[in-house]
Amino acid sequence: MDKQDIANITEDLEYLAAEKNSGLILNILVGTHPADIAMLVRGLSEESARYVFSRIDADMASDVLVEFDDVTRDRLVSELRHERLSEIVDEMDSDDATDLVSDLPEEVAEKVLESIDTEDSKEVKELLQHEEDTAGGIMALEFVSVSENSSVDHAIREIRSKADEVEEVYNVYAVDNEGHLVGFLPLKKLILAKSRQKVNNVMVTDVISVQTDVDQEEVANIFRRYNLVSLPVVDDVGKLVGRITVDDIVDVMEEEASEDIQKMAGIADEEEIRETSVVKISIGRLPWLLVGFVGQLVAAFVLGLFEVSLKEIIALTLFIPLMMAMGGNAGIQAATIVVRGIALGELSPGETAARLSREVKVSLFNGSLCAVLLFGVAGMIYGPTFGSVLGLSMVAVVLNASFFGACIPFVLRRFKIDPAIATGPLITTFNDIVGLSIYLGLVTLMLRFMLK
Amino acid sequence: MDKQDIANITEDLEYLAAEKNSGLILNILVGTHPADIAMLVRGLSEESARYVFSRIDADMASDVLVEFDDVTRDRLVSELRHERLSEIVDEMDSDDATDLVSDLPEEVAEKVLESIDTEDSKEVKELLQHEEDTAGGIMALEFVSVSENSSVDHAIREIRSKADEVEEVYNVYAVDNEGHLVGFLPLKKLILAKSRQKVNNVMVTDVISVQTDVDQEEVANIFRRYNLVSLPVVDDVGKLVGRITVDDIVDVMEEEASEDIQKMAGIADEEEIRETSVVKISIGRLPWLLVGFVGQLVAAFVLGLFEVSLKEIIALTLFIPLMMAMGGNAGIQAATIVVRGIALGELSPGETAARLSREVKVSLFNGSLCAVLLFGVAGMIYGPTFGSVLGLSMVAVVLNASFFGACIPFVLRRFKIDPAIATGPLITTFNDIVGLSIYLGLVTLMLRFMLK
Repeated sequence: MDKQDIANITEDLEYLAAEKNSGLILNILVGTHPADIAMLVRGLSEESARYVFSRIDADMASDVLVEFDDVTRDRLVSELRHERLSEIVDEMDSDDATDLVSDLPEEVAEKVLESIDTEDSKEVKELLQHEEDTAGGIMALEFVSVSENSSVDHAIREIRSKADEVEEVYNVYAVDNEGHLVGFLPLKKLILAKSRQKVNNVMVTDVISVQTDVDQEEVANIFRRYNLVSLPVVDDVGKLVGRITVDDIVDVMEEEASEDIQKMAGIADEEEIRETSVVKISIGRLPWLLVGFVGQLVAAFVLGLFEVSLKEIIALTLFIPLMMAMGGNAGIQAATIVVRGIALGELSPGETAARLSREVKVSLFNGSLCAVLLFGVAGMIYGPTFGSVLGLSMVAVVLNASFFGACIPFVLRRFKIDPAIATGPLITTFNDIVGLSIYLGLVTLMLRFMLK
Repeated sequence: MDKQDIANITEDLEYLAAEKNSGLILNILVGTHPADIAMLVRGLSEESARYVFSRIDADMASDVLVEFDDVTRDRLVSELRHERLSEIVDEMDSDDATDLVSDLPEEVAEKVLESIDTEDSKEVKELLQHEEDTAGGIMALEFVSVSENSSVDHAIREIRSKADEVEEVYNVYAVDNEGHLVGFLPLKKLILAKSRQKVNNVMVTDVISVQTDVDQEEVANIFRRYNLVSLPVVDDVGKLVGRITVDDIVDVMEEEASEDIQKMAGIADEEEIRETSVVKISIGRLPWLLVGFVGQLVAAFVLGLFEVSLKEIIALTLFIPLMMAMGGNAGIQAATIVVRGIALGELSPGETAARLSREVKVSLFNGSLCAVLLFGVAGMIYGPTFGSVLGLSMVAVVLNASFFGACIPFVLRRFKIDPAIATGPLITTFNDIVGLSIYLGLVTLMLRFMLK
């Protein structure tokens, strides 16, 4: 569906929803991919969106619901009666059902869990035990597994019997008598095997799996490293308990990247692109603004200490923004590379020293280059003494900012804090204060010495 | 393999490489996943890495090579004789072979293309026609397709005959007599179908595909939106020409996220985490540092215009860092949300106005809150007149920064420039200059008026 299609159909739906013409609406939506329906509904006015969504049958509604962003989903769900909600949850895969139920108000969640199929309800309760951001929290209980001693033919029958329940099958997992994961059969191998062959004669035994408590970012790195489309999840004794598929991992990766990017920008809670509450957005952005606020009051205090110099030589004031900005930019560049390397699992703690020395060299290179430029510009106007003093300060400020920029992410990781916050206002504010102190301290010292 | 394993084995390999004990090295590596071998080799000294890599047979070497980051790969490849290189390329999938060949020096590339299998060489040359960042540039020519009129049994035979060539099969594509893509058969459906059934009776006809010239970021969004594991690529008349698999898309997503994050930090060329050349790193970071440098010279000029006010009231100088930082932070927050929304395809041009009004409201909310705080702090020290003037300036600075922060990404998209650069030094520098002008202009004006 291209943009023009979407615009046209959205317009039609808006009109038909106002007319309450559910027959025509369903005719338009039949055969449309759930992801496209989600996009169409999202483009409608709130009232029309609710009306159109209420006309879709529970099976389709469950597929559409998982395609919404959290904000749109919560808005639509909050208006549903719990009977309708239960019908929809009943049609969902266990992982999606768990996501939805965990976001419901407690009393609604209880009602839904009571009225859905008992088997489904048991599954959801089981999945709710796991932390949301772990392998257990994102896995589904829908997968196909067989005994390693069974035949290929049996494995095919097992796929058939679970065909409705498990929508996407990439591998059949093989377990021993106690349920421990011992291998897997990609469907391609299954198709090429003879039906009488035993599973443990054809299966792949080098099976990559994760335990339930592994963090989802690490799970994503495993998918990326080994080029996986699905990954079996085992408990602490190696029993097969669930499966994660790559489409969920794609969402995790998007989520983690957005989180990192938002942390860089100093947004505390993850801000949804579709969030409309001004108060919610504002409050999510406020904490780091306040950290910056307090930090810059400290910077004002630091400037106050150099009041005499500042009053004496107005040129010192003029270059404050330059010193702050160059320190800030160089610091963020160094921090960003380190933070990204850590997030992708490509920088081990052993590489800290090598990384720091590299950043120091880079900042000396670029700092010196800018210092020469500054010497040229400022020297022309204020004379070579002042120019060289400014240039030296520039090198010191850039060097300091880069060193801390590269250092702080490693330190944060050491204390199990997400290094991504290092690229945000925290490090900028810190660098501003230290940078201004270095700049004014050095300049005051040098000028006093030189002008004597 | 956990971290301890890797450390131990790396140590062993380092020792054995020094001893040139290739027998033991191969014994250690047998049965190890190519991705793990890549990680091990990367941890070795340059000489040992070359030795170990040279001992691996061409088939495994081709699998290992695609797992390296670009820097490590280029370093190892540059040392290989072109005969060995040709052996390795011969074992690669067409997309990986194309990637590798396109990065080789021209004369080496020509030699390799001459000495590999003519069929492979034709494929690589064909793929080299497409832009690197498009669907055609990332697709592979290895896929299984059958005529829509053939039987399920024939499809299975086709998978068998291509089993060696096409490592991962998720779907069999169905084409008409002219080769146009008309449907696909997921392997699960294929397994459950009867062998005599005709493909066009069991295939899925709602097939999602892309044309060769679609940008890879858009391809990634399609995978994400429709939860795909593979996507057929068609030419401009709808003929099936290639296939993209999700593992490549996972890499694309990682690449695009890293690119956006690095642009936010003002790094011009994509900087590899493993890059070791200080000069290369420095030059990649220099352009935006220089933009900041020139911009802040303009800021210095702006401050110079207010020299009289700054000399008269030293407190004005003390709050320069605060005004700059608050504008900078608020601007980056607004820009980041908009840039991310555009990158994920979730903000359409039609939503520009709504987005801007939201950002203005948010900045009024947070700006006012910070203004009240500033009024309190500065008012206590410098009296309520100065406090209220500072507070008003703060609102103006934050409002201005947020508005431009949210606006500029949309403007850049309009001119087909990647909006991600808006979150980097460009907007910060711009905001610094405008913010300082607003701050000092407003304060000077108001104080002159009030103190009369």
